[in-house]
Amino acid sequence: MVHAEASTFANGQTKAQVYEQVLEQAEALFEDQRNWVCNLSNASSLIYHALKSLPPPSSSVNWCGFYVLDPDPKKPSGLILGPFQGHVACQTIPFARGVCGTAASTQKTQLVLDVDAFPGHIACDSNSKSEIVVPIVKDGVCVAIIDIDCAELGGFDGEDAVALERMAGLLARSCNF
Amino acid sequence: MVHAEASTFANGQTKAQVYEQVLEQAEALFEDQRNWVCNLSNASSLIYHALKSLPPPSSSVNWCGFYVLDPDPKKPSGLILGPFQGHVACQTIPFARGVCGTAASTQKTQLVLDVDAFPGHIACDSNSKSEIVVPIVKDGVCVAIIDIDCAELGGFDGEDAVALERMAGLLARSCNF
Repeated sequence: MVHAEASTFANGQTKAQVYEQVLEQAEALFEDQRNWVCNLSNASSLIYHALKSLPPPSSSVNWCGFYVLDPDPKKPSGLILGPFQGHVACQTIPFARGVCGTAASTQKTQLVLDVDAFPGHIACDSNSKSEIVVPIVKDGVCVAIIDIDCAELGGFDGEDAVALERMAGLLARSCNF
Repeated sequence: MVHAEASTFANGQTKAQVYEQVLEQAEALFEDQRNWVCNLSNASSLIYHALKSLPPPSSSVNWCGFYVLDPDPKKPSGLILGPFQGHVACQTIPFARGVCGTAASTQKTQLVLDVDAFPGHIACDSNSKSEIVVPIVKDGVCVAIIDIDCAELGGFDGEDAVALERMAGLLARSCNF
């Protein structure tokens, strides 16, 4: 199997079809592999290329990746950058700050149509206009978050939220964090 | 500081200038951060966007990332996928196989002008035509490799090898693997 094909998405598919392919491919990739770094690396690629294959605003995705619980004992309530697709990003984020911190501390998906209107938003990239952040919760603990930015306002909707929450559940079950 | 700017490279620079920017930005990013997942994630983005900003063949880079020592005790001589930019990739690679395995086992940079001519080459992506793999060696142990693929033959030269070996040295010094 040539693995790159897993993240090649045909044009002209609906968002629902593309997310189904993401979830199927992810499930197959994770079947014999529980290493979280490996699985989050491939997952960020799958989701990024899926969104890029769709019409705007989805195709304007400009960052797609993960933050995980910071293992540094000096930062017990902090997130640290994990695998991603896109430009260089902020390395650490306190639970108390921004869209990512809010998703981690409340364990609730944050669907933000306009990041500039979100109190305390952390701008890693001034091109990002909207954002979705989905917590990955395992045994009651938020172990990581899925974070996706879009260069257009209103880049994400309820369909993204539902599909990414399924992905978060799959990652929680499939990885040793 | 908007971090995305660290991986924005002006057009019209030489390869030497672009790699200098990569190494300067990497050094600044790693100054207060020794987490290897975080640092390899940002490093893959820096190197990928640097090569994309150059004329062909460098701009035909189609995968840029890392494999690290597999912590699975059942795979004592194996590499596992780390952070990367590009399409979904092979999850595990034995030390004995392919360009990555050769770089890890010999601890020597592998500059491959035509991957199809390399014995035992592992094709994660049939679009990849040439490859460079640079070992990251810490205290005599190969802890990870930098792996970059190009969709053109002869995508890399001695200048890439020298600069990426400096990056490998910086990562070895800057990260707790």
